[in-house]
Formats: sequence, C-alpha cells, structure tokens
Amino acid sequence: MPKHPDPARRSERSRQAILDAARELVSEVGYAKVSIEAIAARAGVGKQTIYRWWRSKGAVIFDAFLALSEADEGGMALPDTGDIEADLKTVMRATVAEFADPAFEGPIRALTTEIINDPGLAAQYRERLAAPVDEVKKARLRSAQQAGQLAADLDLGVALELLYAPLFQRWIYRSGPLTPDYADTLVDLFLKATRP
Amino acid sequence: MPKHPDPARRSERSRQAILDAARELVSEVGYAKVSIEAIAARAGVGKQTIYRWWRSKGAVIFDAFLALSEADEGGMALPDTGDIEADLKTVMRATVAEFADPAFEGPIRALTTEIINDPGLAAQYRERLAAPVDEVKKARLRSAQQAGQLAADLDLGVALELLYAPLFQRWIYRSGPLTPDYADTLVDLFLKATRP
Repeated sequence: MPKHPDPARRSERSRQAILDAARELVSEVGYAKVSIEAIAARAGVGKQTIYRWWRSKGAVIFDAFLALSEADEGGMALPDTGDIEADLKTVMRATVAEFADPAFEGPIRALTTEIINDPGLAAQYRERLAAPVDEVKKARLRSAQQAGQLAADLDLGVALELLYAPLFQRWIYRSGPLTPDYADTLVDLFLKATRP
Repeated sequence: MPKHPDPARRSERSRQAILDAARELVSEVGYAKVSIEAIAARAGVGKQTIYRWWRSKGAVIFDAFLALSEADEGGMALPDTGDIEADLKTVMRATVAEFADPAFEGPIRALTTEIINDPGLAAQYRERLAAPVDEVKKARLRSAQQAGQLAADLDLGVALELLYAPLFQRWIYRSGPLTPDYADTLVDLFLKATRP
C-alpha cells in the first residue's frame, strides 16, 4: 500500500468532481451563467486544473453531459440479444425512466434551453454528444436490418427520430406520463412502421 | 361612406396591432422580458386598451400565438378529401414549411424556451394552445378511423406525437433539413405504423 494517495486516482477524482460540478451548476443556474470559476470552486480545485484538461467552459460542460450519457447507457453499448423488440423495450424503458428522473432531466432541460437558442451550441451538441450516441443506436438497428427484422431501405436517422422524438416532445411539454407502458407503446408503433 | 372611421373596424385594427406587437416582442427579447407597456408602445395603443381585452401579459401573448396558429391552419380545419395519405401530406408539408420559415419559427422558439423551464406556462400552453389544435387534428384522424383507414384501437394522442414529434425534434436541434420530402417520409412511416 502506498504511503501517499495514488496521483492517478486523485487525478480521476478531481476530474469526476469537475464534471459533477459542471452538471450541477448548469442545472441550477443555466448554461449561460456557469463560469469556469464557479465550476472550480464547487469541485474544490483550482481553475488551472480545469484548464489542464479542457480548453473552455463549453468543452468541460459537454464532457460532463457525455460522461452522464456514457454512464447511463452502460458504456455506450445497446443490448443485442437478437430480439429487437425485447432489446428496444429494455432501452426505451430505461430512457423513459431517465427523462422521468429529476436528477437526470434537470441538466438536460437546461442544456436543451441553450441549444434551442444557439445554433452554434446546437451544432456542437450534435457533433460531440448526439452523433456518437446515435451511432451506437444505429448499430443495433443495423444489426436488426441484417437479421431481416427491420426494412432494408429504412433511413436509420429518421428511424431514431421516430423512436425517440415522441418521448422528447412529451417530456419537453410535460404533456403526458412517462411510464414503462409508454415506452412499450412507442416501440410497438416503431416496429410496425419499420418492419420489412 | 362614413365621415368617421368605423369604430368596430378601428377596434379590430388595434387588436391586430396588439397581437402582432406581442408576437414580435416575444421573438425579439423572449417571453420573460416582454411587458404590457412595451406591447402597448409597439402597437401604438394605450395600456388601458390592452387591459380592456386581456387580463394579463400571459393572456395577450397566448392569444397572439393562438391567432397565428389559426391563421396558419386555415381556420383550424384540416382538409378531409377522404384520402388520409393525401390530406396528411398536405398538412405536414405546410407544417414543415412553417417550421422552416424564420418569421414563424422565431416566436415559437422563444415560447418553447419558456415552456421548457416553466411548468405553469407549459400547462397553460397545453390547455389554451396545444389542446384545441390537437382536437382539430384528432377529428381528422377519427374520421380516418371511422373509414377503416387507421387502426380502430389507435390512441390518437400518441398518434399525434408519432406524426409531429420527429419534426419538432429535428427543428429544435437543427439536426436535418425541413423539406417536403421529409414531410412525406413522416406521413408514410406514420401510416405504416397506424394502419388497421
């Protein structure tokens, strides 16, 4: 056992504290009002520690959200049991639960607010956050296409919109319950629309 | 011809000027920063003229958006030629064009921003704006159900989410083109999902 704390482990703890602080602050005061200073103070590190790893406020906040979605999607891999209906229901039930969870939905609501009004931030979001996650989801749909479970000519980008956008809209407008039944209904409609 | 302007006509002109001013100001400075004073000044009327017709800032702004959606939906009636595919493509092409039009999308973007962060405003929006428009859309879907063109057990609320939410999400994130082809694709997928 080392006498002094492992520097790599301490470094990882600081990194986590910074990402947690960034997410909390965006949720509390909104993206526009978050500063590097405030993130550093909340995380208990110096500003220079943040600038050692990230170039800008935007960069650290995006990594904070990226870390959240990696954690929540189990290392970015979607289940593939060969049963597309069962796998999508597993994924959509988990996604609906996330959107119904105040700890998760607060930061996403704050980020969405900024994205609506800032085309530059929207482009960064698509490139750095949405696109990598969408690629993981498309990989699962592609495997179902190859298994003959989804139409071969299906546009996978539009397919993801069809599957996820109803949940997104219901969440934004708080226009209906976010339940496991709702997740299943969306998967059933999606599969009916996209079967060969 | 009357010597003096017709008071009813002048009244209608003031009403229109107030609604136009409310929409413009929400688009320019955001819902939170709009005041009754600013609307009155922009419309060239006194504050008392506004309070004669509306109880609050929220009330006049909702009427402003309601007037916009009534105008754009041709008096709130959806076409019913008996051909659900043709009718939905007409409607969705027009809706996509609206979302692609800066004059229309600016105010809606401002309002959506406020709705995301204000559950009370979200409830007002659902009750006063979304619900009446949704009822009109549901009436058209119900007529298609009665004609055996849509599944009899289809939940019409979820059906509207399936049809409109992909467009809404693509618009919010600016994540893809808003074209007539896209409108047609959404209708094709929707009909495949909802056929008997």
